[in-house]
Amino acid sequence: MAATRSRNTRTGGRLAPLFFPTSVAVIGAAREPGKVGHTVLDNILKGGYQGKVLPVNPKADEIAGLKCYPSITTASEAAGTVELAVIVIPAPLVPGVMDECGAAGVRAAIVISAGFRESGREGFLLEQRLVETARRHRMPLLGPNCLGLITGENRLNATFARLMPLPGKVALMSQSGALCTSILDWSVKELIGFSRFVSFGNKADVNESDLLRDWRADSRVGVVCAYLEQVSDGQRFLTEARFTSRKKPLIILKAGVTDAGARAASSHTGSLAGSERAYAAAVEQTNSLPARSMEDFFDLISLTSLTALPGKGGVAILTNAGGPGILTADACEKEGLRLAAFSQNTISRIARAVPGAGNLYNPVDILGDAESSRYRDALRILAADRDVASIIVILTPQAVTDIEGTARVIVEQAVATRKPVVGCFIGEEDIEVGVEALRRGGVPNFRFPERAVAALAKVHRYAERRREEKVFEPVSFRVKKERVATALDFSRGGGYLHIGGFQALDVLRYYGLKVPKGRLAKSPDAAAAIAAAIGFPVVMKVVSPNIMHKSDLGGIRVGVADAEGAREAFEDIQAAVRGNMPDALFLGVAVQEQVADAREVIIGAARDPQFGPLLMFGLGGIYVEVLKDVSFRIAPISRNDAKKMMYEVKSYPLLTGARGEQPADTDAIVDALLRCSQLVTDFPGILEMDLNPLLVKPRGQGAYVADARMVITP
Amino acid sequence: MAATRSRNTRTGGRLAPLFFPTSVAVIGAAREPGKVGHTVLDNILKGGYQGKVLPVNPKADEIAGLKCYPSITTASEAAGTVELAVIVIPAPLVPGVMDECGAAGVRAAIVISAGFRESGREGFLLEQRLVETARRHRMPLLGPNCLGLITGENRLNATFARLMPLPGKVALMSQSGALCTSILDWSVKELIGFSRFVSFGNKADVNESDLLRDWRADSRVGVVCAYLEQVSDGQRFLTEARFTSRKKPLIILKAGVTDAGARAASSHTGSLAGSERAYAAAVEQTNSLPARSMEDFFDLISLTSLTALPGKGGVAILTNAGGPGILTADACEKEGLRLAAFSQNTISRIARAVPGAGNLYNPVDILGDAESSRYRDALRILAADRDVASIIVILTPQAVTDIEGTARVIVEQAVATRKPVVGCFIGEEDIEVGVEALRRGGVPNFRFPERAVAALAKVHRYAERRREEKVFEPVSFRVKKERVATALDFSRGGGYLHIGGFQALDVLRYYGLKVPKGRLAKSPDAAAAIAAAIGFPVVMKVVSPNIMHKSDLGGIRVGVADAEGAREAFEDIQAAVRGNMPDALFLGVAVQEQVADAREVIIGAARDPQFGPLLMFGLGGIYVEVLKDVSFRIAPISRNDAKKMMYEVKSYPLLTGARGEQPADTDAIVDALLRCSQLVTDFPGILEMDLNPLLVKPRGQGAYVADARMVITP
Repeated sequence: MAATRSRNTRTGGRLAPLFFPTSVAVIGAAREPGKVGHTVLDNILKGGYQGKVLPVNPKADEIAGLKCYPSITTASEAAGTVELAVIVIPAPLVPGVMDECGAAGVRAAIVISAGFRESGREGFLLEQRLVETARRHRMPLLGPNCLGLITGENRLNATFARLMPLPGKVALMSQSGALCTSILDWSVKELIGFSRFVSFGNKADVNESDLLRDWRADSRVGVVCAYLEQVSDGQRFLTEARFTSRKKPLIILKAGVTDAGARAASSHTGSLAGSERAYAAAVEQTNSLPARSMEDFFDLISLTSLTALPGKGGVAILTNAGGPGILTADACEKEGLRLAAFSQNTISRIARAVPGAGNLYNPVDILGDAESSRYRDALRILAADRDVASIIVILTPQAVTDIEGTARVIVEQAVATRKPVVGCFIGEEDIEVGVEALRRGGVPNFRFPERAVAALAKVHRYAERRREEKVFEPVSFRVKKERVATALDFSRGGGYLHIGGFQALDVLRYYGLKVPKGRLAKSPDAAAAIAAAIGFPVVMKVVSPNIMHKSDLGGIRVGVADAEGAREAFEDIQAAVRGNMPDALFLGVAVQEQVADAREVIIGAARDPQFGPLLMFGLGGIYVEVLKDVSFRIAPISRNDAKKMMYEVKSYPLLTGARGEQPADTDAIVDALLRCSQLVTDFPGILEMDLNPLLVKPRGQGAYVADARMVITP
Repeated sequence: MAATRSRNTRTGGRLAPLFFPTSVAVIGAAREPGKVGHTVLDNILKGGYQGKVLPVNPKADEIAGLKCYPSITTASEAAGTVELAVIVIPAPLVPGVMDECGAAGVRAAIVISAGFRESGREGFLLEQRLVETARRHRMPLLGPNCLGLITGENRLNATFARLMPLPGKVALMSQSGALCTSILDWSVKELIGFSRFVSFGNKADVNESDLLRDWRADSRVGVVCAYLEQVSDGQRFLTEARFTSRKKPLIILKAGVTDAGARAASSHTGSLAGSERAYAAAVEQTNSLPARSMEDFFDLISLTSLTALPGKGGVAILTNAGGPGILTADACEKEGLRLAAFSQNTISRIARAVPGAGNLYNPVDILGDAESSRYRDALRILAADRDVASIIVILTPQAVTDIEGTARVIVEQAVATRKPVVGCFIGEEDIEVGVEALRRGGVPNFRFPERAVAALAKVHRYAERRREEKVFEPVSFRVKKERVATALDFSRGGGYLHIGGFQALDVLRYYGLKVPKGRLAKSPDAAAAIAAAIGFPVVMKVVSPNIMHKSDLGGIRVGVADAEGAREAFEDIQAAVRGNMPDALFLGVAVQEQVADAREVIIGAARDPQFGPLLMFGLGGIYVEVLKDVSFRIAPISRNDAKKMMYEVKSYPLLTGARGEQPADTDAIVDALLRCSQLVTDFPGILEMDLNPLLVKPRGQGAYVADARMVITP
């Protein structure tokens, strides 16, 4: 009990009573096997939990040899204190019982019962009442509609799962109870151990961000893995995930990442954004390890929990068969995992140690007749090479192969080096004895080389970024926030939720973006006068709240060279609008400085329902519209994020002079991205935004927003 | 014996004595266990082969109870005939023994011995002698350096593998013996059976194309799978693979598909082509099933050998857990496998059969407490839906799940419908009993839903193309082949292996491609005269064998409007060349008709070492150079192939009027691609070719090759 107490003090967080209670009440404990209330109690007792356990059920006096209490109030009075309540009663009764728990001084609750939000409107309202009650009593609440929770060192198994996980350093959170049971089943066979195991079901209160925050500081947690269907608060998740992955690997399997059907959106950014893009950006920005399938999830858990992180360098492949060696090298190229370049010393040592080796280079082929001692020699040499950061050891069961002996050698060498060593024993029946030996020795084995490579490639990348990247620093410029607030309110007041033209440009100017000189002309003469004041040539564009695609109906003139031209252009534009769109409100013509020698790019923003403001970057015109060559990040972004957004688009070389032109002012693009990031972060009311085009002049000469549109909330 | 004879007659091909010999001699048979010569003889005897078996070894009188002969000659005399010789003696002795075999009337040979091409120059020469000997005696030769061969219904196991495969309908060919042993190991556990099992090692004689040809007509072969490192004759392989996959699934795992490092090439096409591109094109053109990993290879073998091909329609997902259901639907979207759209009738039947189902639509969630009968009802309903072409059944081991009973229900329903039904039991320890029941019932099980989807998606696509696509028909135009031959020879004669300008355009004209009017001008006045004859405006370009990138050094003028302009342009170009590249040989300036209203595209060709002429298509300029937005096919191509090449590039919408322009003449592009295909097929001496640009006018107005370059063999 003393140990449990001290643990409470150590993590000290809000969730401590969930994971380390000194006493647990099972409300709805049942005597009948097969009932969930029975299984939960049974699991707690069999798991070896050392604290007090109190069954609560008004219909029983005693269950499983323990005194049973009619209510949590009586249980609490009898026991002095109940820290955690596990609730397994019909949903409609739960809020009332929660209130009772709060009154009785219970510090946390797990609601296993289903019948809440997932089952329709009534359940939704019930869940709301439940959360309100829990919050009123300041009790963290796990669930409802979940499998429960397991704490390793506490031996607390408050779930109705069939199995108990092995002890270990992995912490799992899952939005699917069924996935938990599958993972448990797999982990017991693969000897992967868990320190925390949480099914958070509907996550009405405790969610992924709470757990990330808690587990980040928890020394018993070495690897965090999460199966998520939705993220409850995307912005908070980003922060928590970013901090977590700086300390320990964070593996995420996200369901529902593809978008069914196109979204109705009025901006380019809106139509290209989507939950898949937002999720991919979140993964990238937080340096988490994205599992692309359930298998990949298992593989990453197994690799990160069993091996240390690789240092600088590439992977070495050791094999007793040429074909699988080539397939592994192929996979490395596909996944972007660099093959280690051996030193001359390594190569000559291999040549001496492995007479007649098929290949001394990488992959090292020690041939089909390799005995375990040849594996040992080669492994020792490879582990000593400075450029080798990890090793994949392939074994195919050939005529003379000593499968078990080789597995033992691999375990021995894996223990001797701190570098990750993974096995890849290919086959099924014959190799099982070797796989078992690897498993017992704590060496991860992959049934297929491509899987080993896929997992290792992600871990190499993760480790490299963790070593090299600075702490996340969003950039904050001095801006005129008040002015933007006023402008948006003014627009809203007039009922205009689409903002374009000078209004939109003004908003951007307040955030330090440059715009070309320009003014609205209401007559041909005014146009001529404004143009003369700006200096020729000028660009002229129709201004109308109804017209979104100005060029399609003759609403734009470029290269207007003199006063007479400006007058004519005004009249032509006005006539074109009247002719093509007679119902459009014609407010006049914008006369703008013509920005010379500029490349067109687009910066956009949309709002993701989970992650919030999503920034987009791409080159203008066909690059966005036809080729969809764009990159995304969730705001706020760092300078590094902004640069990566630029580098990621395939057309980026066009900005650096790939075709012999002067390089564009990419610093100005980065600056513009950062300012837009700040704007959409400061104003959640901006739902969509396109800066189209941002005209980027040659290096050192800046970038100008020639046109922009925004959609704001009512 | 009679049965064996008749089989010979049935397949009747050149390879019949390899697969269905009436008698087999093992040359190098050994008494000592552990020796390959012992294992081979042992496998033949234990396998249950019914023909005569004759050990040959001068140092023994008797092995394994059989009389041993000192030579193949004596063995042959004694037995009357020896149809197949399996040779397991040191490499240097093999060619001599092969000769002896031929003289003794042996009809086919398997050389298991290593020490040939794979071991250096001497071995290479030895292999050459071996092949010559075999061919002289018209004996098909398998190997050398291979594991051997197994024929199912003949029960002939002429390998030194540890295991004998189960009987079945899969035929495997493999360039890696080690991979064979891994596949055997896996297949025995998974109850996958083989009718043919061939390790062809160095494939000095019998190669993948021979086997494809043989197995295509072989009624015992239901699925062909191949592990390949190189393809021996790419063009022949294309033909054989194309015909094979029209009759049965052809699954290919290719190693070495990524290109290490960039290739030195002087054309755009050359620098973008590569073995990976060629292989991808081959897979696409032959409608074979490409395995992207070893795991994928196993999965595809298991799926195609155990289930029928899906008909028209989508996939239905049935699950007892929401999370894995969503992950499966995600995977379907990623892999392009359509979810079946259930009829109203199906939906109401499910609603009745599954009270309170989590989801009636696709994926159908029958909830965590689903018993086997609920699975049965749902399966029956889904199988009856017209839009359901295949079914994935997911099971997660939850508290009340009847794992084995559900597996039996799935087997029963899979037997009842002709539609492919696959299991996806997720977990390890607990589910094993269910997986075993599926296995025994012949239902493929995938450990993870994403794997089931990846395999099913490929098989759906394969079946659809097999149903819908016509027989391959290369297009043949009437062309002036003789003239091209003369032109190329003339160039070669002059030592010019790079052909450009009017020479290259002439070659293309002979194959029916249109080129703009034009002539070479050697002086400013000539330029003016030619331009006047053609009609203004004209384009003018420097002509020099040394200048590849004309525009970079001011060697091109467009829109030359009158005679004076033409004179000036000539002088300017000449001056620019002298200034920028004084050593270049200046031959004059080409004066060309200016093709108006045209979009620029590129057609290119390169030569792949394995597959031969590789055609490329892309839009001009940055689309090829920066965005690398190109498509490839191996020539000769069909009209359908040419169309697909066009559709595949991302920038294709730019040709159809995506930005409001007139649609381009895509028929003319298809025509040009087909003519280029014919040209590079007719002339293997054309190593690289770029038609850059091909100017494509609006629909109905044709396309013109404005410039072209070729690299030819000496």
